[in-house]
Amino acid sequence: MTRTVVSSATREVVIGPDRPFVVIGERINPTGRKLLAAEMREGDYHRVEADALAQVAAGAHMLDVNAGIPLADEPAILAEAIRLVQSLVDVPLAIDSSIVEALEAGLAVYEGKALVNSVTGEEERLERVLPLVARYGAAVVAISNDESGISEDPDVRFEVAAKIVRRAADHGIPASDVVVDPLVMPVGAMRFAGAQVFHILRRLREELGVNSTCGASNISFGLPNRHGINSAFLAMAISNGLTSAITNPLEREIVTAIKAADVLTGNDRDCVAWIRTFRETGAAAGGRGRRRGRRRRAVRAG
Amino acid sequence: MTRTVVSSATREVVIGPDRPFVVIGERINPTGRKLLAAEMREGDYHRVEADALAQVAAGAHMLDVNAGIPLADEPAILAEAIRLVQSLVDVPLAIDSSIVEALEAGLAVYEGKALVNSVTGEEERLERVLPLVARYGAAVVAISNDESGISEDPDVRFEVAAKIVRRAADHGIPASDVVVDPLVMPVGAMRFAGAQVFHILRRLREELGVNSTCGASNISFGLPNRHGINSAFLAMAISNGLTSAITNPLEREIVTAIKAADVLTGNDRDCVAWIRTFRETGAAAGGRGRRRGRRRRAVRAG
Repeated sequence: MTRTVVSSATREVVIGPDRPFVVIGERINPTGRKLLAAEMREGDYHRVEADALAQVAAGAHMLDVNAGIPLADEPAILAEAIRLVQSLVDVPLAIDSSIVEALEAGLAVYEGKALVNSVTGEEERLERVLPLVARYGAAVVAISNDESGISEDPDVRFEVAAKIVRRAADHGIPASDVVVDPLVMPVGAMRFAGAQVFHILRRLREELGVNSTCGASNISFGLPNRHGINSAFLAMAISNGLTSAITNPLEREIVTAIKAADVLTGNDRDCVAWIRTFRETGAAAGGRGRRRGRRRRAVRAG
Repeated sequence: MTRTVVSSATREVVIGPDRPFVVIGERINPTGRKLLAAEMREGDYHRVEADALAQVAAGAHMLDVNAGIPLADEPAILAEAIRLVQSLVDVPLAIDSSIVEALEAGLAVYEGKALVNSVTGEEERLERVLPLVARYGAAVVAISNDESGISEDPDVRFEVAAKIVRRAADHGIPASDVVVDPLVMPVGAMRFAGAQVFHILRRLREELGVNSTCGASNISFGLPNRHGINSAFLAMAISNGLTSAITNPLEREIVTAIKAADVLTGNDRDCVAWIRTFRETGAAAGGRGRRRGRRRRAVRAG
């Protein structure tokens, strides 16, 4: 079983097929959030703080931090955001940028072993990002597109992922530190977008033996009841091998689907996390209304 | 692609991996419903009527009809219930009994091609049920246990299913008319109950090429928030090849997960069913508040 270990100064998180699914909180990202973008550009990080605390309180195992603001000093802002978030919460971070200098600035201030988000199969990206990942001893998200774009053929996307894993090895980065993103397209526009991702995930696990992640919410773009699609998509993707996702831990339906999937893959042993989460609210379905004071002991006994 | 075709007098339903998932309504079953059992025994079928109508209105593609009442004349009651349900709704039925005489009584009055629920891998069941299925030209649910019970080894359960398919062929019943139930055990008691079912389902599709069904709700027995587990289980099972389930179409979360899974397998073309169901309620996520009068045309255009 491949295990990807990332860490903060004080906490380690393991991504792996025999571990509970890892939720990487997506909220600290100014893309499409005009107010947050304007505030971050002005050095006002109060919303970053609130998003960090709320996501960890909601159960995020890691947080993604992105500072992609047009015409702003992204390396400086990303470094500042990372420093701030690490002072508030102890979960490991994904340092998220398409600008190599920003990734480097983030890595320079990061305490622990970060997840660099991301490298693609494009030659120029491979040559610039992988040495940085190796130098800082980080893990890296590998996105399965290259110079030719995003293939609609899942086997081509798999081959791009395989190439990135080989190239990472050339830089001394083990496959266990490469977390592949199979790229999720909107199923409303592309009928087999879901089926393609499931196919790639299965090959990633069975043939490459690597961990995986994705930005799950793209699957439902343009459709009504997006949480309904996203929840089923995550459960199905986990069943095909997905081991982490960059998603919103504040969405109840999504978190419920992920926790249920952990039960159903056998990774929530004795259903401890599930029972702890739902015992109080699920009285009709087996909870016997134990008082709060007895809860902790009851869970251990379960 | 294997297709199992069942029918009523006037309607055909196709179960298959390239078709929308088939929901078989589970409600007409006196097991654990004391009031319904007492009523059916007395010849009072008003609750059977209501359950039939409500389940079809909620979108059930088929209905399971069971009359398992201790010490009652099950063949006569099952035949009466089937006659009644067929007079009210036009969906095909699963004739559900562990008593061969009841299956026969149900088949004798049934109009169309029924699904017989069920045969196991036990020698005595094979020899009594399969000739009946062949004689009436029905399809049959094959439950993957035999004289030795229900194996905890999923590959043993697969072998039982394979044996039933071979024995059915000896009676002239094609594999396309055998719908395998991999047997769902409670995940609260057996850590890998979910993973086992997914493994069997994948082998059923890839090696036997047969359709499948299951009583999904058993997976969550004894746990809180059962619908949360059941919904994720169904989405994951569909992703591994499950093509129908005996479940409750009145449960919103379960139906949502199934419809989402249809979108994600590519079997809800252009997301027509999803959009029709959620456009009105999903305004925040893309619906533009079209008035009802324009709804039908908008769905077609989508």
